[in-house]
Amino acid sequence: MNILLSNDDGFQAPGLTALRLALAAQHHVITVAPDRDRSGASNSLTLVNPLRLRPQAENLYSVNGTPTDCVHLGLTGLYASPPDIVISGINSGPNLGDDVLYSGTVAAAMEGRHLGYPSLAVSMNSHDPSHLQSAVNAVLYLLPLTHQYPDRSHMILNINVPNLPWEQIRGFKVTRLGQRHYSEPAIRSTDPRGREIFWVGAVGSIADAGEDTDFHAVEQGYISITPIHSDLTRYQALACTQQWLEEQAHGS
Amino acid sequence: MNILLSNDDGFQAPGLTALRLALAAQHHVITVAPDRDRSGASNSLTLVNPLRLRPQAENLYSVNGTPTDCVHLGLTGLYASPPDIVISGINSGPNLGDDVLYSGTVAAAMEGRHLGYPSLAVSMNSHDPSHLQSAVNAVLYLLPLTHQYPDRSHMILNINVPNLPWEQIRGFKVTRLGQRHYSEPAIRSTDPRGREIFWVGAVGSIADAGEDTDFHAVEQGYISITPIHSDLTRYQALACTQQWLEEQAHGS
Amino acid sequence: MNILLSNDDGFQAPGLTALRLALAAQHHVITVAPDRDRSGASNSLTLVNPLRLRPQAENLYSVNGTPTDCVHLGLTGLYASPPDIVISGINSGPNLGDDVLYSGTVAAAMEGRHLGYPSLAVSMNSHDPSHLQSAVNAVLYLLPLTHQYPDRSHMILNINVPNLPWEQIRGFKVTRLGQRHYSEPAIRSTDPRGREIFWVGAVGSIADAGEDTDFHAVEQGYISITPIHSDLTRYQALACTQQWLEEQAHGS
Amino acid sequence: MNILLSNDDGFQAPGLTALRLALAAQHHVITVAPDRDRSGASNSLTLVNPLRLRPQAENLYSVNGTPTDCVHLGLTGLYASPPDIVISGINSGPNLGDDVLYSGTVAAAMEGRHLGYPSLAVSMNSHDPSHLQSAVNAVLYLLPLTHQYPDRSHMILNINVPNLPWEQIRGFKVTRLGQRHYSEPAIRSTDPRGREIFWVGAVGSIADAGEDTDFHAVEQGYISITPIHSDLTRYQALACTQQWLEEQAHGS
Repeated sequence: MNILLSNDDGFQAPGLTALRLALAAQHHVITVAPDRDRSGASNSLTLVNPLRLRPQAENLYSVNGTPTDCVHLGLTGLYASPPDIVISGINSGPNLGDDVLYSGTVAAAMEGRHLGYPSLAVSMNSHDPSHLQSAVNAVLYLLPLTHQYPDRSHMILNINVPNLPWEQIRGFKVTRLGQRHYSEPAIRSTDPRGREIFWVGAVGSIADAGEDTDFHAVEQGYISITPIHSDLTRYQALACTQQWLEEQAHGS
Repeated sequence: MNILLSNDDGFQAPGLTALRLALAAQHHVITVAPDRDRSGASNSLTLVNPLRLRPQAENLYSVNGTPTDCVHLGLTGLYASPPDIVISGINSGPNLGDDVLYSGTVAAAMEGRHLGYPSLAVSMNSHDPSHLQSAVNAVLYLLPLTHQYPDRSHMILNINVPNLPWEQIRGFKVTRLGQRHYSEPAIRSTDPRGREIFWVGAVGSIADAGEDTDFHAVEQGYISITPIHSDLTRYQALACTQQWLEEQAHGS
Repeated sequence: MNILLSNDDGFQAPGLTALRLALAAQHHVITVAPDRDRSGASNSLTLVNPLRLRPQAENLYSVNGTPTDCVHLGLTGLYASPPDIVISGINSGPNLGDDVLYSGTVAAAMEGRHLGYPSLAVSMNSHDPSHLQSAVNAVLYLLPLTHQYPDRSHMILNINVPNLPWEQIRGFKVTRLGQRHYSEPAIRSTDPRGREIFWVGAVGSIADAGEDTDFHAVEQGYISITPIHSDLTRYQALACTQQWLEEQAHGS
Repeated sequence: MNILLSNDDGFQAPGLTALRLALAAQHHVITVAPDRDRSGASNSLTLVNPLRLRPQAENLYSVNGTPTDCVHLGLTGLYASPPDIVISGINSGPNLGDDVLYSGTVAAAMEGRHLGYPSLAVSMNSHDPSHLQSAVNAVLYLLPLTHQYPDRSHMILNINVPNLPWEQIRGFKVTRLGQRHYSEPAIRSTDPRGREIFWVGAVGSIADAGEDTDFHAVEQGYISITPIHSDLTRYQALACTQQWLEEQAHGS
């Protein structure tokens, strides 16, 4: 297969390297990844400055941009013939629940889908993962199956892998995203010159880890697979919003 | 009402200023906005560096961060008593269809909702709007109605206003997000030192502007209101993904 | 006179504003200053990204670049007829001794000279100055005298003003730059996510504050004026370096 | 010897790598270099954000900062016992004449000297050098001689090497810095969204390439060695500035 690989931890990240080398043994892989850590980049695009593509090794490029920039540039600027799939990861750290919204890893996959390609986002459930091979195995297992995915043109699968040896993983589970409580407050501090600074607060504790959620699956030792979309319309609220607007109009 | 106001065009942007002054005449408004243009920032968070809050005028602060940072900092670091609503805008330029995914304006509203507050994102359908007052009027009309919104804790309304005088606007329409074709390819160029650079390509042309879409409403002279959510689970694909996985497992 | 004004604290800094308004009463002043605080920028130039010039008020522009960028852009991109002088400041905080090397304020003046214009760099000896008017008065006093400066094409005067009311200032002193001890070590810390960070250490204590130095003058209540150059050749070492090289060559 | 190595082209630059490997064969070398290209950084220091040190290989660290940050951090944060010398380079591209003022390569050496260590800055006279080995040889030749340098505590040697094979290089010449004409004007352009941008103009043509200058030496096939200082006082102007000030005072 022709594969475009990216991530948000940067082109040197061990998770990306492990997946890149494993995939390259069997596939034609082009990697376009940020030149540094861009965790938390979400779907941000670099509009004010130009991007620079830097070859780092054969078929490995770094870009001074976001994960979304990398996939945009890789798909529209580099390919002679289009790839079969876009893969983002392996991320160090989970992308579960509503954290997914801020994730550069998932954003890279969304950008792949946005440009018309099926996409996978792959993350390890540990910020210092010791079992990257389990995520590699998961990708190698799923990759040939993607040809049969029912709705390939809308396929974005968000995959989270427990930080366990492959033998201890209990299987795959299809899940919905769980939810966290509100994030922790910003942390007020001072720099050494005595000026006030703030750090963005930590994510909240888990609020909804029901049995069908990604949080629950990973916690139980399963690889979580969540189908993701990029349509932010809240369809279930269309009717009530319409009604609200009409009532208010009449009332006023 | 207590209002937290933000945007992605920066604290000096005319749209923000117009709305800030209009709201301040009747409400208690605190504005926390980026120190420069952060269009395209999406939901990105600044995790690697600290943020600095700079008072610019009474109840007006700039932050060296993204729209999401601003709302996070405003809501968790500044408020004695919590606000009633978060408003983002008035953006110069529309936030319609799948562009919404990259929008810092909409991201600021999503962050408000994420921290538990009803939110509005407000944009003008022109990058050089001549009728900001129409968007101001729309907000002033909707604001008192938000108390009656049926599901306030999930309320994010994405509002796009035609660049027309208030009298020529035909009313409000509740819409779903439309869709664009794939974005234009990255633009290859060289800098004056002869080095290759790329600019992110322009958005694609409109692919789905059906009668119920935001594209259509604004085009027809209506103010478009789209209820937005931040749950990226593609629920309609849960069953088929499950089935796909099982079949493949059996097949293999 | 035609004056190009810049600084390194950003276009909104009170020191710049005070000087801008005072000068504009009698002269034609164009101000091009960084869009944010660029203290410590030294002579750095922005080569990788383009610059954007943003009008902020009549004859006041901000640039997303360094002080050197601003002066370069102001002098080569904006002027119909060339200015008579470049002024940088009023900086909040002193630029004395070897700190001058890191100063964006002084760098802006050096760039003026580099492009062929006499230049002044003006700083208050306090990071939170309460007597900006004293520095304004110093500039207004010196400005007409600059026409008679003996070597105008090489003129860069680094001016530091005590934070005192004008009446308490004892006069002007021409000085050489003093010297500090080595700077304090980098400060090791951790961010809230537990990762190691370092802050650049504070400047060292004063090592050479001899009677003819800028440190001494300001300390004694005088306005210090140091003529500055940008020729980094250490002329007094040319002969001994030559001799060293020859001896070594013969010895080997 | 104990050597701290840095540069401004980034930790991956071929010039740095060539020198690092050659030095490590005989010396104890710690390399601390920027995580990306920081050409043009001059002596700028990162004061607003913290720095992060990232191990890239044994004794090789990247820093998200400027060359000056790297040397500051290397010398004050990393060393158990102090190094004997600081070396910056090998830079791709010359650092000659008044360009030296903007150079991050030279600034890294100046920072070494500023913290009390003798320093070398090494550059190739080509932006795409094919004879890095010549610069490596020059450093290996000079390094043992530095123990006998007459004024070690003030030693900063700016070394520029012609892009020639070692056998074709005619020897070493001790030089002063030459001078360029004013730089080219800023280049006005537009980005693909139709907004005005400016690029910093190219350096000017050579104005002073007298026989004793670095420009001349390199042009003639010699390795240029210029002793550099960081004292920006223009001593030769102290008396005339004093006289100017007194005359004006009496005249007024």
